[in-house]
Amino acid sequence: MSARITCPVLSTRVTSAEDAASHIHHGDNVGFSGFTGAGYPKATPAALHDQIVAAHDRGDEFRIGLWTGASTAPDADGVLAEAHGVSSRLPYNSDPVMRRLINTGEVDYIDAHLSHSAQHMWFGFYGNLDVAVIEVTAVLPGGLLVPSGSVGNNKTWLDQADRVILEVNHWQPRELEGFHDIYYGTALPPMRQPIPLTDPMQRIGEPYLRVDPAKVVAVVETDRPDRNTPFAPSDATSAAIAEHVVDFLRHEVSAGRMPPGLLPLQSGVGNVANAVLAGLDGSEFTDLVAFTEVIQDGMLDLLDSGTLRAASATSFGLSEIGVRRFMDHIDAYKGRILLRSEEISNHPELVRRLGIIAMNGMLEADLYGNVNSTHVMGSAIMNGIGGSGDFARNAFLNFFLTPSTAKNGAISAIVPMVSHVDHTEHDVQVIVTEHGIADLRGSSPNDRAVKIIERCADPRFRPALQDYLDRARAERPEARHTPHLLDEALSWHQRYLDTGSM
Amino acid sequence: MSARITCPVLSTRVTSAEDAASHIHHGDNVGFSGFTGAGYPKATPAALHDQIVAAHDRGDEFRIGLWTGASTAPDADGVLAEAHGVSSRLPYNSDPVMRRLINTGEVDYIDAHLSHSAQHMWFGFYGNLDVAVIEVTAVLPGGLLVPSGSVGNNKTWLDQADRVILEVNHWQPRELEGFHDIYYGTALPPMRQPIPLTDPMQRIGEPYLRVDPAKVVAVVETDRPDRNTPFAPSDATSAAIAEHVVDFLRHEVSAGRMPPGLLPLQSGVGNVANAVLAGLDGSEFTDLVAFTEVIQDGMLDLLDSGTLRAASATSFGLSEIGVRRFMDHIDAYKGRILLRSEEISNHPELVRRLGIIAMNGMLEADLYGNVNSTHVMGSAIMNGIGGSGDFARNAFLNFFLTPSTAKNGAISAIVPMVSHVDHTEHDVQVIVTEHGIADLRGSSPNDRAVKIIERCADPRFRPALQDYLDRARAERPEARHTPHLLDEALSWHQRYLDTGSM
Repeated sequence: MSARITCPVLSTRVTSAEDAASHIHHGDNVGFSGFTGAGYPKATPAALHDQIVAAHDRGDEFRIGLWTGASTAPDADGVLAEAHGVSSRLPYNSDPVMRRLINTGEVDYIDAHLSHSAQHMWFGFYGNLDVAVIEVTAVLPGGLLVPSGSVGNNKTWLDQADRVILEVNHWQPRELEGFHDIYYGTALPPMRQPIPLTDPMQRIGEPYLRVDPAKVVAVVETDRPDRNTPFAPSDATSAAIAEHVVDFLRHEVSAGRMPPGLLPLQSGVGNVANAVLAGLDGSEFTDLVAFTEVIQDGMLDLLDSGTLRAASATSFGLSEIGVRRFMDHIDAYKGRILLRSEEISNHPELVRRLGIIAMNGMLEADLYGNVNSTHVMGSAIMNGIGGSGDFARNAFLNFFLTPSTAKNGAISAIVPMVSHVDHTEHDVQVIVTEHGIADLRGSSPNDRAVKIIERCADPRFRPALQDYLDRARAERPEARHTPHLLDEALSWHQRYLDTGSM
Repeated sequence: MSARITCPVLSTRVTSAEDAASHIHHGDNVGFSGFTGAGYPKATPAALHDQIVAAHDRGDEFRIGLWTGASTAPDADGVLAEAHGVSSRLPYNSDPVMRRLINTGEVDYIDAHLSHSAQHMWFGFYGNLDVAVIEVTAVLPGGLLVPSGSVGNNKTWLDQADRVILEVNHWQPRELEGFHDIYYGTALPPMRQPIPLTDPMQRIGEPYLRVDPAKVVAVVETDRPDRNTPFAPSDATSAAIAEHVVDFLRHEVSAGRMPPGLLPLQSGVGNVANAVLAGLDGSEFTDLVAFTEVIQDGMLDLLDSGTLRAASATSFGLSEIGVRRFMDHIDAYKGRILLRSEEISNHPELVRRLGIIAMNGMLEADLYGNVNSTHVMGSAIMNGIGGSGDFARNAFLNFFLTPSTAKNGAISAIVPMVSHVDHTEHDVQVIVTEHGIADLRGSSPNDRAVKIIERCADPRFRPALQDYLDRARAERPEARHTPHLLDEALSWHQRYLDTGSM
């Protein structure tokens, strides 16, 4: 019996990935573990890929509905997309091969608020879940599971699936036991109760996932690393954005609108987010706490320096260097990092109660403060809304961050009208680019437009934006709340498609 | 001492509306009571109108920031707009004179989620509140106030204002005492606690508003009715929409996705909403409960018939006949109707916990399920988002309802791309017109488009919508997640502006 599988019942189910994958059939809905490239299954997807390809070679149909926590990796989303084995996908994807199939229309993609995904499954809105494929760190007696490097929707998939495949990944440190807080107090309306969490680091659950051993059809042992996206060092643009954010927080504290220890931080994934964390690390702020989705390399820096006291999240999202660092000092992080289900990490009730400071990237914003986080030129999806809506809508204070231009200046991130809306003018408080910050709180649309043009737009695009605004205001003097020239509102995007530049 | 004012301290502050209004100065932010034309101040605004006009005649500036619960009436919003005495307005307006000034750009309008308005004031995002003008039913000793026909933001305005003017309206039945549940457990982060409400009719507060008597600069006695908008009887289109909704609920119950007694109902204001209520009243559903914003005439029908056991809201919104009916049987309604602050009636925590069925009107929806609730042809605001976002985002199930056409068929409520987004594709579940119902849950954008065209669009507009979709899909085969023709996406609206028809 493997040291990682001490459950007498489940140790008898250890088998090959090929055998495990054989429990997945055409038409099944399959729930994978995985969030930000951490904790996704690593062997079963490849075996499933081979079985799908073989079926297709025989002329048989074989496509599944694929549900996850959020993004996985090339060896999960990627291989199944390559096999053309996915009919539908939810709630979030960032894999480039899968993205291409979504954008050609081969894969039906349901881009959902992450806090909604588990409950919509429970509500019956997504149909039946046939199989769950869940990576864990260890299997204890009685079907108690030590979770892996992400929690995501694992609790829901394990509870709801007809059949369960477990992957026990020896690469995940055994010491992950104790890093998780799995809340089993959720219920369906009308039986729901208040979620008792009032402090980001409060434990309201237990350190283990549960599974009914009778449902486990296969246990696969693996020893393979997570995706571990390389950490992109901060550039001058990101650093400038970060400086604006830190200055703004400082200003809010001095104005008495924010406690000196700030409020719990949520930070999106990526370069700009890491720069903001670095900016905080170089500031006077200390003893902060995070209530967020993902523990990135930048958060380890803050935990090490004491800028961050502790962090609650649903997943790691570390580079290879970050992973090594985490593993080398894993005992020092225990008690300071807590991973929860994404229905809890992103829960509107908790985000609002705790008064989160939400910081998320975006693709573009328009003159009136509508934000597009997902769609390139209106039609093609990039990744998905993820948790940005859960956090932004319910935050105490939200920031949307972006460089003012993309594609070497060909694209302005500030446009007359966004080509897709993920966060409406009602939800967007502070927009930041390297040029400055537009504080939209308590502002009318016309005030917002002035601030966004003057403070956030790239100077090369400001005259054209101002000209659009002036002409829109002039055209229909009786319709000046959010004045638009409808035959021109999306012309910047069309021009980019036609000419390669806005 | 008036029988309605038994507080020895505050009875000494009784004065004229003119004297009360003299406590309001140019540049003040002023918080009015009032929600859906109920419980707004009725004498002070007119006196303030006169003082503003006199100041303007003298060449002096006199404009205020006007904050309310939601919509008031011609004798509140209307008279101040007529006097050109308002510089900014939040969080919701439906007054036609005020709307005109918002749309010409004279009044800065901050159209906010109603659940956000009180907390954003507390957070300091709106600036200082100088004066509160609050209608009440009676003033008890110690500064306890029997609230009027709406609660709205009254608690927050009373707490936060530097100076308070009370209007005691003898027209409001004295028996309103006991109809309110004012929760005083709110706090600023990081001190927030779970809101203990787990049942729509649970009392978590007290029946009275509180005011510090030292802040009360004037008490004005009035005897004037609320706005009491006439009740529009259901027409064939509304009745058809209602029938689709009731059928759909029936279907959800039989599919096991909804308990037989449904879940708490939220219903927007107006003709279609009343038709849905009438539809429920004629159905087999019984012993239902509402957790909503407004008690309309339709809800009284349901309460009388027993279809509705009880209703929680923040305001009445009755016709003259409805008012009479309510007053005639007021004792029978006590304990079955509870009015709360709008931060509670609309709270995301509670809407999600209770699992609300949200039903709201809209102006238009697009092929992918984005909904415009507020802006006519992109630029001019109609009313505002109100509570529709609070409810739709956090509901168990949400409906957006509209006739398929407006202006005698000149406008299609289903368009290629909405001209303004209030509810994104991530938030919209079920779209209903008189032609049918599009269930978008768990659907990809392309599936949504097919359903919306086939089931909701007016048959006259279906071929053009399908043609747009076909050509958008064909134009960029690599960008088919939400395919759009950007130079044509808003052309239906432009055509309406140019020709009077889409």
